[in-house]
Parts: sequence; C-alpha cells; structure tokens
Amino acid sequence: MDLLEVLHLDELSQGLANLSMFPYFDMAHYIVSIMALREQPGALEVSRVSPLACWFSSMLFCFGGAVLSAIMLAEPVVAPLSNSTSVLLASMIWYLVFYCPMDLVYCCAALLPLRLVLSGMKEVTRTWKVLGGVTQAHSKYKDSLLVMIAIGWAKGAGGGLISNFEQLVRGVWKPETNELLKMSYPTKITLIGAVLFTMQQTHYLPLQKHHLMLFYTVFTVVNKSRMMLTGSSSSPFAAIESAIYKTLFSGHSPYATLTDEVKKACIDNGTTSTSTATTKESSENGGAGKHVPVSPVKGRRGSLKAKEESESAETTSCKKTD
Amino acid sequence: MDLLEVLHLDELSQGLANLSMFPYFDMAHYIVSIMALREQPGALEVSRVSPLACWFSSMLFCFGGAVLSAIMLAEPVVAPLSNSTSVLLASMIWYLVFYCPMDLVYCCAALLPLRLVLSGMKEVTRTWKVLGGVTQAHSKYKDSLLVMIAIGWAKGAGGGLISNFEQLVRGVWKPETNELLKMSYPTKITLIGAVLFTMQQTHYLPLQKHHLMLFYTVFTVVNKSRMMLTGSSSSPFAAIESAIYKTLFSGHSPYATLTDEVKKACIDNGTTSTSTATTKESSENGGAGKHVPVSPVKGRRGSLKAKEESESAETTSCKKTD
Amino acid sequence: MDLLEVLHLDELSQGLANLSMFPYFDMAHYIVSIMALREQPGALEVSRVSPLACWFSSMLFCFGGAVLSAIMLAEPVVAPLSNSTSVLLASMIWYLVFYCPMDLVYCCAALLPLRLVLSGMKEVTRTWKVLGGVTQAHSKYKDSLLVMIAIGWAKGAGGGLISNFEQLVRGVWKPETNELLKMSYPTKITLIGAVLFTMQQTHYLPLQKHHLMLFYTVFTVVNKSRMMLTGSSSSPFAAIESAIYKTLFSGHSPYATLTDEVKKACIDNGTTSTSTATTKESSENGGAGKHVPVSPVKGRRGSLKAKEESESAETTSCKKTD
Repeated sequence: MDLLEVLHLDELSQGLANLSMFPYFDMAHYIVSIMALREQPGALEVSRVSPLACWFSSMLFCFGGAVLSAIMLAEPVVAPLSNSTSVLLASMIWYLVFYCPMDLVYCCAALLPLRLVLSGMKEVTRTWKVLGGVTQAHSKYKDSLLVMIAIGWAKGAGGGLISNFEQLVRGVWKPETNELLKMSYPTKITLIGAVLFTMQQTHYLPLQKHHLMLFYTVFTVVNKSRMMLTGSSSSPFAAIESAIYKTLFSGHSPYATLTDEVKKACIDNGTTSTSTATTKESSENGGAGKHVPVSPVKGRRGSLKAKEESESAETTSCKKTD
Repeated sequence: MDLLEVLHLDELSQGLANLSMFPYFDMAHYIVSIMALREQPGALEVSRVSPLACWFSSMLFCFGGAVLSAIMLAEPVVAPLSNSTSVLLASMIWYLVFYCPMDLVYCCAALLPLRLVLSGMKEVTRTWKVLGGVTQAHSKYKDSLLVMIAIGWAKGAGGGLISNFEQLVRGVWKPETNELLKMSYPTKITLIGAVLFTMQQTHYLPLQKHHLMLFYTVFTVVNKSRMMLTGSSSSPFAAIESAIYKTLFSGHSPYATLTDEVKKACIDNGTTSTSTATTKESSENGGAGKHVPVSPVKGRRGSLKAKEESESAETTSCKKTD
Repeated sequence: MDLLEVLHLDELSQGLANLSMFPYFDMAHYIVSIMALREQPGALEVSRVSPLACWFSSMLFCFGGAVLSAIMLAEPVVAPLSNSTSVLLASMIWYLVFYCPMDLVYCCAALLPLRLVLSGMKEVTRTWKVLGGVTQAHSKYKDSLLVMIAIGWAKGAGGGLISNFEQLVRGVWKPETNELLKMSYPTKITLIGAVLFTMQQTHYLPLQKHHLMLFYTVFTVVNKSRMMLTGSSSSPFAAIESAIYKTLFSGHSPYATLTDEVKKACIDNGTTSTSTATTKESSENGGAGKHVPVSPVKGRRGSLKAKEESESAETTSCKKTD
C-alpha cells in the first residue's frame, strides 16, 4: 500500500469510487449501446417498420443486465422500467440515434474521437454494474461464490447474454450462436471482473475495494481504447485462455495424436456447420443486410461479435446511411 | 357530468363496474380464445397427436395475460393454475371445442350471431383485465406510469404477446413475426386501454373510473362487432398511427426525397425478406396447413394476425372440418 | 396393511424413506445425466469448442428440475447454484465424463452392469424429487391439486421439459419437438408419480407416504432395468394410454369413418412435416452428428427421445470415441 500512497493512487481510487454514474456515464452507456444496436444488420429496417420493437430492443441493450439479474434473483423484471429518469433518458437517446433529422446525432457520435470517449465512459459503468451485482448477491447468498459471480456477470454483460432473445424482438433468430458458445470480449472481461470482485468481497483477494475498482476500470478503459484505435479484435487473454484450454480440456492421453485427430475432425465439423449457417444467414440478409456487410471470414463470430466490432470506430458507415 | 346524469349513463356505468366476470363473461373469453387457437394452422393436428400440448396451449391462450404479468412482477407463474374453478371451466371448454362428438360445440359457437355475442363478451373481459393489471401495478409501483402501462397491457393482451412461446408448445416457431414488430388490433386496443386506465389512475385523465370503463368497453365491443360484421380488419387508428409515424419517425430532413428513397428501399427489403419467410412458411405448412389456407397477401401479418382474423365470422370453416 | 407387515415391507419402506440421497444417489444422477448429455448429437463437439457452454448445459441436465420449479414458484433461479457442494460434485463429474484422460470415466460408466446400477440409483432420486416438489407446492397452495402436480412434475422431469432451451445453450434449436408434443418415458413416469404423490398428500389415495415411495421406487427401478436389459423403449402404459386416447380424444360421432379419414390425413400430414424436419435435421447434423447416427425411423421421436434412448446400454458407442 506504500507504493499506492506514493503515487497518490489511494486518493484517486477513493475519488473514482465516489464518482456518480448518473447522468453522464449512464448517458454514454446508453449512446454506445443504442449505436451498437443500430449497427446490427437489419436494425435500421426494424426502426422504420416498428418503432416500438426498436425501442424495446434498445431498452434490452441498455438495461439487459438489470433485467437478467432480476430474472435470476426472482425480482420483478419491470423494476428497471420503474426508474423513470433512466428510462426517459435512454428513450430520448434512442429517439435521437435512430430518428434525428439528418442523422446528426449518430453521425457525430460515430466520429472516432467522440466514440472513443463515449466507449471509455461506458467501460467505466461496467465496473459499477459488476460491483453492484456482486454486492447484491452477497447480501442474499453470503457464502456462495458462484451466485455472486453469476449475478455480477449477468448485471455487467446482460445485454450480450440475452442477445438471442433481444434479437427475437426484432424478428431475428440465430440459435447457432450465443455468448456461452463463443464469448465476445466484453462478456469475457465482465466475467473476469465478476470473479475478481467476488474474491475481493469474500476476502480471498487482499485488496481494498476502491483499489480494485481503479485497477479494473483502468484496465478495461485502456484495453477498449487500444482495441478501437488499432481496430484489432484480438483478446488480451488469448494466451492464458489457450494455456488453460490445453491444460484442462484437451486431455493428456497417450493416444494424443488420435485425440488430436478427433479434435481436428470436431473443429472441422464445427466450422463446416457454422459456415453453412453463415451462408444461410448472409443469404437471408441478402436484401435487408446491405447496411453492414458480413464477410464470410468474420461470419464465424456471428452477430454477437458484430455488436462489439461495430463499436470499433467505423465512421465510414455513417456515410452510407444518408 | 350533467350530461351523463341526464343520459342515465352514471347509473349504467356503475352497474357495469359492479358486473361480475365470473362465470358468463369468463366462459365467453375461454370459448372465443380456444376457438381462435383451433383455427390456427396445424392446431387441429396437434390436438390429435398430443392432447396435452393442445391443452397447455389452450391454457396459454386463456390465461396468457395472467402468466405474463406474473413473470413481469416476479409472482408465481403457477398462480393462475391455483384457481381451480377457472382452470376446470377452461379445460371443459377446451375439451368440448376440440373433441366434442360431431363437433357440435365448435360448429354452434362458430355461427355468426353466437360468435358475435361471445366476442362482444370477451371484449368486456378485456376492460376488467387491463384495469386489474393497472391497479395491481399501481399498488406496487406508485409513481411509475410505464410499469402500470406495461402490466395493464400484459394482462390484457398477454396471449398475443407470448404467442411465439405459445406456438413453440405446438412445435411451431416463427421468429420473424411477433406482436411488437407487427401489432394486431387486439394488442393495439389493449395498449390504448392500458394508457387510458393508467392516466385515470394517476389522475392525469379527469374521468371517474366507472365512466372510463363504460366508454372503453362500449368502444371495444362496438368496434369488434363492426369488424366482424364487415369482415374488415382495418384498424380504426390507422389515420392517427400514420400521422404519429410521419411526425415522429420519418425525419424531416432537407434530404427528404433521399430519405424517402432509403425508406422505400428499407420497406421493399422488409417485404422481400418477409415474403420469402412466408413462402418458406407456406411450404413448410404444405402438408399440415391445409385447414386454413394462408394467402400470400395475408401472409404478411402472419399467424399472430390469423388469431384475430379467424375470430371474424367464418362459419364456412366449420364445414371443412366435419 | 397386514399383508405389508407380514412381508416386512413396512420396515423396508421406512428404511427407504429415511435414505439420504446425498452423496451416492445424487452422484449417480449426475453421472447418468451428464452421460446422457454427452451422447446427444453434437455435444462432444461443443465440449471441445466451448467448455463453458458444455458445463452450463450439464448443470441444466443435473439441476433442470430445480431451475424449472424455481421459475414456476417465482423463487430465485440461482438458488440451485448456491448449494456449493452439489454444484462442485456435479462439476467434477462433468469434467471427468467429458475430459478425463483416455476417456476412462465415461468408458467405465458406460459398461452395462455399472450403467444399470447407476441408472437404477438415478431412478431412486426421481421419487425424492417428485415428492419434494409436491410437498413444497402443498405448503404454498394447500388446495390446488394442479399446482402440486405441476411442481412435482417439473422438479422430477425438469431437464426434459426445458430441453428446448438447454439445446439452445449448445447452439441447437429444434422447435418441432418438445416433451409436451411427444412425451418420453421418464417424463411420463414422472407425471404419473406427481399425480400419485399429490393424491397421497391430499388423502385421496389411502396409502401411507413411505409405502407409496417404496412402490413407486420399485416400479421405476424395475421398469428402467427391464428397458435397459431388453433394449426396448416401449412404454408400459401404451395400452392404458391408447384406451384413454380412444375414449376421450377420438370422438364417437356417427361420422366415425369420415372422422377417421380426417384423423388419418392429420396424422399423415404430421408425419410428412416431421419427416421433412428430420431430413433437415439429419442434413444439418451431416457433419457434426457423426457420433450418434439418427435413423429416419427413430427420427420421429427426435433428440428428446435420444436422451433416454442413449441411456439404454450402448457400450459400443464408447469404442467409437477413442
């Protein structure tokens, strides 16, 4: 802790911990989320055909975490709706992003520097949401690490985890892809956050809460900015993941070569079946999906991925729409 | 209020407000709902293959609103089942509509005059259900208009809103269509009712509850009867909807012509993609869907619409089945 | 009761009623359930591609009943997760069944004698789960037979009833089949158990609880063993079901021949549509589904059936995988 004191990090982290998310950070979260929705294939068409479905979809993007954790804890699903100020704010942003004359709001927010700032601020809200979930679960299930992780994860990455059902609202159904089968970066980083905050809460991690908040927030913001600036979607945990996977889930049998062949066959099959799905997808979106072309190479990650990929600055997409 | 007193409307509305829904109006609701289920494509086949799935589907048609509002308020989903009398009544009607010897019950109830009366009575129950939902939400969330509207809507139009999952029980899955993407008339009128009763409850609407109940009930019954008699499925709100849509959701940009073109393209795409879906649908139902032929023109509205369209008197359909 | 006393059945049933499910019987339930998951088409591929989705799927197989009954009673869905010991035990078994070096655990457990014992022990847990559900529902809804049956059924056969959504976790979506449309044997026997225990609880069945537990357990275990040894999947209730169906759901109209024709047409249509679905299925699984070939004849029962069919001793399947 001495080092922390020297660097004034203690004060900084205290200041951060006392930061209020409302209204600026929440606004950034709503803007980035609703822009991500708008960039989903077909979303713009839905916004013309049925503003209500579009609004409901937007609310699921903004409050998905609250809805999912409410379902998991058997609390009223409508509770997020009862916070009128937040819903009103999110609805206003929804309206401006989708229906603003001359598309001013979307085009401005899609400019790289602004988008970078907004995305950074959205990442900050993640810390608060994960911590909120973990704390809430801790107050009900004192000793259950798993429940705390699950609720923290759900609260922080709810929009992604329920994306199959969010898509259903817009008439899209892609059962072959979900966040558990192929985790996107935000879902992964949220899971790691949920684990860390749970360990801090149960004193397995010898860190003070506001220090962890600072470290986690800085990490997510820096990493997000790096990904947006370099346009890379590579996970910073790829090496660790690969090591864990090889150690735990590949089996160390004397028949290693045989197993590898089986595995290769499995993966080949997987690829084949998903690529077929992608082809189907792209042919389905043939008419409607002009807005964001899905290359077959990217196709693998599916639309879930698209949500976040679209967050990386693609200011060109704005030109297409008006 | 003087005018009301002159017309004796005050007494009439008081009388109406004290009307008990059980058993006659509830019965009418069950009969019309289960007949609507029976007229869904493929439902008759399901009733032969799996009476249990058919019964469960019927219960979702009859108690869908109660189930949906229970989920939203985190109350036990099984609660509607605990009202043994209602479930028994609905089950008896389900049995008679689907399995009555010589199909007597369905054929009688499908006669235009009787169906007209039953549908009118079903519309009356809508008022009670919407009001019940709004009141229930008001007791929990005093100040949240949105929650009150949502629960009132869910209670009154639950069967329609959960129709994707009701269809799943019968092995049918049509993700490209739902009540939010393309609202049917009953869903719309219920939403309007939920808004009105919420405004009355929160005193934004300077009307007494029983007066509003009278007006709303008369409107829904008259309108339903008109639609059944003329066979028209045109919404009485088409003009207002169109005006709101043009004002709020089309954008008033100087690039109006361009925007219009984009919009036209969007709608064209939308139509193309849905018509493809319809073709797929009709080919899928090729064998099973003989009972109610879906014309490509109607196809757009999909099966959700069919539910209500089928409620318009088509006594001829009876002849086909026996 | 005299006969019972003579046969010492009273003491035996008392002993059985005091038996603890944890840990041995629970372990058998987890092993058999997770092996059933592993034998689903495509499950092995999922276990390689996404261990997390595989783990979540396994937990739904093991705790599906608890999850479903929690949803129905508006209790926290995460509650089963809060029982750390059970989750840890199930997770360990999941790991060993899917990732054990040289596939030792799966191959051993798949040997007929061991599988027979494990399946028998799993059937014993069914009694406890159904009884637990009925008792829990009875404490909340004293007079509602239907709720008690529903919760008992959900708790005992939850994994099957939510299988559509469990499959969705693994990226599989088969809307044309569910446990209500075509009940599998375990779902049927659980429903019968739920009815019996509900009648015992409400004193309509003049039997003591531990006697009923003994009879029901013996019946399920013997029947399961018989089915595994003879490899038959014929239901012992086929005759009763057929009689009930003919009495209640076929209609005794004077137009019997006509009705029969209609019914035949219906069933033909049904078959046609499902066989089309099966073809689609098998072509979809063309690559991924090599592990368990689905014959078009069996195809009708779909994957739900596969879950249980796979439980019948097919020790040969082990040879295929390593």
